[in-house]
Amino acid sequence: MQNSAGLKIVIIGCGNVAWHLANHLKDIKHNNLFVYNHKPNSKLTDFKNKLNCKAESSFNNIIADADFYFICVSDKFISDTAEKLKLINQNAIVVHTSGSMKIEAIEGFKNRAVFYPLQSFSKSDTIKWSEIPIIIETENLYTKRKISNFSKLFSKHVKHLNYEDRLKLHLAAVFVNNFTNALFVAAFDIVSSNSSNAKFDLLLPLIKQTVLKIENMPALNAQTGPAKRGDNKVLKKHLRLLSGKTDLKKIYKQLSDLIVKQQTNKHA
Amino acid sequence: MQNSAGLKIVIIGCGNVAWHLANHLKDIKHNNLFVYNHKPNSKLTDFKNKLNCKAESSFNNIIADADFYFICVSDKFISDTAEKLKLINQNAIVVHTSGSMKIEAIEGFKNRAVFYPLQSFSKSDTIKWSEIPIIIETENLYTKRKISNFSKLFSKHVKHLNYEDRLKLHLAAVFVNNFTNALFVAAFDIVSSNSSNAKFDLLLPLIKQTVLKIENMPALNAQTGPAKRGDNKVLKKHLRLLSGKTDLKKIYKQLSDLIVKQQTNKHA
Repeated sequence: MQNSAGLKIVIIGCGNVAWHLANHLKDIKHNNLFVYNHKPNSKLTDFKNKLNCKAESSFNNIIADADFYFICVSDKFISDTAEKLKLINQNAIVVHTSGSMKIEAIEGFKNRAVFYPLQSFSKSDTIKWSEIPIIIETENLYTKRKISNFSKLFSKHVKHLNYEDRLKLHLAAVFVNNFTNALFVAAFDIVSSNSSNAKFDLLLPLIKQTVLKIENMPALNAQTGPAKRGDNKVLKKHLRLLSGKTDLKKIYKQLSDLIVKQQTNKHA
Repeated sequence: MQNSAGLKIVIIGCGNVAWHLANHLKDIKHNNLFVYNHKPNSKLTDFKNKLNCKAESSFNNIIADADFYFICVSDKFISDTAEKLKLINQNAIVVHTSGSMKIEAIEGFKNRAVFYPLQSFSKSDTIKWSEIPIIIETENLYTKRKISNFSKLFSKHVKHLNYEDRLKLHLAAVFVNNFTNALFVAAFDIVSSNSSNAKFDLLLPLIKQTVLKIENMPALNAQTGPAKRGDNKVLKKHLRLLSGKTDLKKIYKQLSDLIVKQQTNKHA
């Protein structure tokens, strides 16, 4: 782990990424942390009261001599935020934390960077930063060294990738996180509808096993079930159960087809 | 935990469910275990050599005085197997282990039962039986008591459900296991194609976090990402990346629509 002593860090925004960045910096006893939000609110107050940050809601009061400015706002506000930061300090390292935005969203800085933590953050989550991959992008060696060292304050897994590869990871993250979670919701709806006694909690051990398996073998080899076996009788029974749910029926068919295709390509 | 002393158990079939049943019975020092397969093969030999079972490949040699006959064969062979068992012992408890077959697949026995462990078994898996829900179905109190007590040798979570509810769980299991795993394979294909440096392993911490979250909150509330936010710019970027992959593109759109619908219903 690196040492953060002396670094002055400004975080713009007070959402969940900002929160977990600040929370970790507090955990490693970093004291020079400033958080800005465009308006005072309870989230900003939390940074001050719970994480001991200097909190600020007037852009004019943002300190001009920070080492890093972390832009942790929605994608569509990144460029505007960078534009305003130019008036304060053009020599600092200015960083955005988005998985899907180009580094060019930050215009007018020679030392710009991307710091994308590959994780889904809710404020109440306990985050094990040391395990979370941090994807960085920089354009010169000075910035690369600075942002690498900063990233190592957080994680053992720091990886420099170009935009296309970062975007692929971001897309893959949607598949393994958002879409997987949507399947969990669908499963919940299936077992909880009507007078069914079956409960979603009964599925948790299977869900855990699904994840455990792919730590030890490729997901392609871990596949089981009726689609893989080509068991059309079971498929028909399942589609009958879904007869009132057009969307889940479509998804059932398409994901079953995908499984068949994945397994066929494996043997090809 | 119950005591298995004195019970004579016959397992028909030597697949993965049979294996993990026998393996657990060995772990709890149960010695009266007989395994039958319709032909001698290396799998059957494993039961004999590694699990200390009596192994048999001639149906005529199956013992007639067992307490339980567990039919652990493919769905389509359950009825035929039960038919042959009638010649041996019509008073025993005859059990199938399928999630999608009716109890009626076992004809001609007054003490028939279903014992469906809600898990995906590969032979090499380490199975934590005590956590795995076992779904049972019986038709009289005698059998219910017997099969409940037997199930408690395995698990803390034994649940009596009717066919419709068991089938719903089986369908939900396909969503959370097979379909989720198919999304993992898709994610692997996305990050590993061409000259990409990005690696599937970088996604593992996110996958673990996805599961951890739903242990603490409903999956519906755990959802994040571009579809939930209605972020069409990101959706377009992702669809561009998938331009060569028609099936993944379709699935991307449908699961994104599903997320929107799930979140809309939540607020309805």
